[in-house]
Parts: sequence; C-alpha cells; structure tokens
Amino acid sequence: MRVSELVARTGVPLATVKYYLREGLLMPGEATSATQARYGEEHVQRLGLVKALAGAGLPIPRIREILRLVDHPDGSLFDVLGQAIAQLPPYLDTPADDADEFPRARAVLDRLGQVYDPRYVAVGQLERALVALEEAGIPMTEERLDAYGRHVRGIAEIDIGLMPTASAEDAIRYAVLGTAVYEPVIAAMRRLAHQDVAQKRLRNPEEQDQQ
Amino acid sequence: MRVSELVARTGVPLATVKYYLREGLLMPGEATSATQARYGEEHVQRLGLVKALAGAGLPIPRIREILRLVDHPDGSLFDVLGQAIAQLPPYLDTPADDADEFPRARAVLDRLGQVYDPRYVAVGQLERALVALEEAGIPMTEERLDAYGRHVRGIAEIDIGLMPTASAEDAIRYAVLGTAVYEPVIAAMRRLAHQDVAQKRLRNPEEQDQQ
Repeated sequence: MRVSELVARTGVPLATVKYYLREGLLMPGEATSATQARYGEEHVQRLGLVKALAGAGLPIPRIREILRLVDHPDGSLFDVLGQAIAQLPPYLDTPADDADEFPRARAVLDRLGQVYDPRYVAVGQLERALVALEEAGIPMTEERLDAYGRHVRGIAEIDIGLMPTASAEDAIRYAVLGTAVYEPVIAAMRRLAHQDVAQKRLRNPEEQDQQ
Repeated sequence: MRVSELVARTGVPLATVKYYLREGLLMPGEATSATQARYGEEHVQRLGLVKALAGAGLPIPRIREILRLVDHPDGSLFDVLGQAIAQLPPYLDTPADDADEFPRARAVLDRLGQVYDPRYVAVGQLERALVALEEAGIPMTEERLDAYGRHVRGIAEIDIGLMPTASAEDAIRYAVLGTAVYEPVIAAMRRLAHQDVAQKRLRNPEEQDQQ
C-alpha cells in the first residue's frame, strides 16, 4: 500500500509517520521510485503499536527500547517482559540499586508472599505511592492490604492467563499494551464501583424503604 | 505557631505557603503584628490536603472547588462526594450531555448491573479507556470484564467501608485522597502481581522440578 493508505488505515497523520520513519520507530517501506515506497501489514501493525505506546505517554527513547525488545527478544521471556514493562510510566527520579531503599514496598510484598527485588521498577513505583498515602493521612492497613492483594492478584491471573505466548513479539505487545491501557480502565471502573456502592449505602433510609 | 513552624510541620516551602495564601487555598492566620501571623492545626491539615491534591496533579481551580465543597458541603453527601471526585484527573476534552455518547461504557455498566449516567465524569473516562483498548488490539472480553468487575467491586467495598462518615469534611477528604492516591498503588501492585504470576507460570520446567 502507499503511505496515504497507511495513514488512512492507522489514523496516524502523515507528518507523524514521516517522523517515526526518521526516528527509526517504523521500518522503511520497499522503495518503488525515488520518492515513493510500498508498505505492508507489518507497517500497519508496527504503527499501531507505536501509536498506542505514544498515547500511553511513553517518550520516543522508551518506545525505541520496547521495539528493540520486540525485534530482538534476547534472554528468557520473563526477563524480556520485565525489561519491556520497565519502560512504562510513571518514571522515578532515582533508579534503585540498594536492597533497603524501599521499606514500605518490602513490607507489603512480604505480607503478600511475593518476592522483593528493588531492581523491579514497579517496586520503586509502589514505594512512592505508599509514601503519598502516608502523607495524605490514609495509610495502608493490614485489612486493606489483604483485600487489595487478593483482588489485584485475581486481576493479574486473568491478565497472564490471556497472554499469548506463541511468539515473544505477541507476548511483549500484549504485556506492555495490556499493562498500560488497562490501568485507566481499572481506575475508572473503581470510581464507578465507588459510586454504586456509596449510593446503596448512603442513600436516604426512607428512600430505601420505598424500594 | 509561626509560619516557619507551619513550613517545618508540612514540608511545604515558604514560597508555596505564601502562594496558597494569596490564591485563597489556605485561610489567613491570626495577625499578631503588621507582618506576622499565628497558625493553628487547621492550617496544618488544610495545607496537607492541598499538598496531596497538588501532588495528584490537580490544577489550582480544581483544588479550590474541592475546598469549597469541604467548607460548604451543600446537598446530600452522595452528591457532594460525586462533585469532589469529578475534580480529579484524567480530564476529558469534552464534557458529556448526551445519554448516548458513551456506548462502550454503557455496555460495560449494563453487564455489571450498575447505573449508566453519562453525567458521571468517570463514565467518560471509562469510555476513553475502552477506546484505547480497542485501538491497542486488546479489547475487553466478557470473561475479563466479569472478573475485573468482581475484583474491582471487592476493592471498592473495602474503600467505602473504611470511609469516615461522621462529618462531610472527613468523608470528602477520604474519598478524594483515597481515590487519587490509591490508584497508583493498585497499578503498581498489579504490575508486581503480574511479575509474580508470570514467574511461576513461565519459569523453566526443569527449575520447577528442582523446587
């Protein structure tokens, strides 16, 4: 297909397609003349991935690193998935290299029976989020932690159970996009569940009687 | 206490305290001279709330609206909580006024047995997140929706069950901060649960045999 069809298929503007070509995020098409090239389904798919990652707030170097992992998934699938997920926001100011740096996250993971490894980016993200809880005066209690842990694990098991593992590329694509694009879904669903639960509990008792 | 102690107690820099005073986000202290004022615990608490809201990414007008609701909670607690939560990010470009504007969110809420009301800001947020899923090629399936719905509701019931309802101010503070500061916690916990579940499922079978 011509570049105009690639634009139509993906909804990515021509200027952005050209930018991604220059930045190496999109592989070149097959040249058909000095100024034209032909593109295929692999370009549609790659452009969709780049668009979704850019939409999730990833800067270009982070997207490039994920594409490198998709194209050259060296190492075990578990390690490659971890490296890819580590490219997602939120970004911390200081990377971790000290096993005692995240005491709150360590306590949470210990209680949940999960491995504590400060090199996992999400451990630092959890620590920072737990600090914000304390500053806001709504610290994590054991009751809440146990319930959250159980429900979050239930969600994670569904996620991993649905992950395609036939190819590393499919798995990486699913893991990165699924992590990034489902977080806002879960946040919105939680707000709407709050509303639903609160309406039932806070509703005027007289109104309740009438129903 | 003097303003210097207010700074020390809250960790909010003096210039920021002065800015919040000018913007009306912090009530004035009791003047003790032409250039000095005395502050109390209510200032410490208010500054903590403003700091947490600013840290969650709220612009000043949104913070001001939440403070107005805290100070003048007119209407039912349910309505006031909804108005306060509606100030939280993510912000949509176009507010809703059409009952058919969010077909994906409506389908999700119908299946979960929850009320669909397009005036709830979170309905628009859910719709946008569901569009991103489709574009990323990982649409919500019924299997996933049912599991997510069950687990998210479990989390929401814990949240609402722990909400203080003695005063509207306490409830609003808890609901707004709890919604905002727990979202990054849940996201980080999910990523770490992914890692834990994936490690167990993807681990080399030979290694599993050794354990």
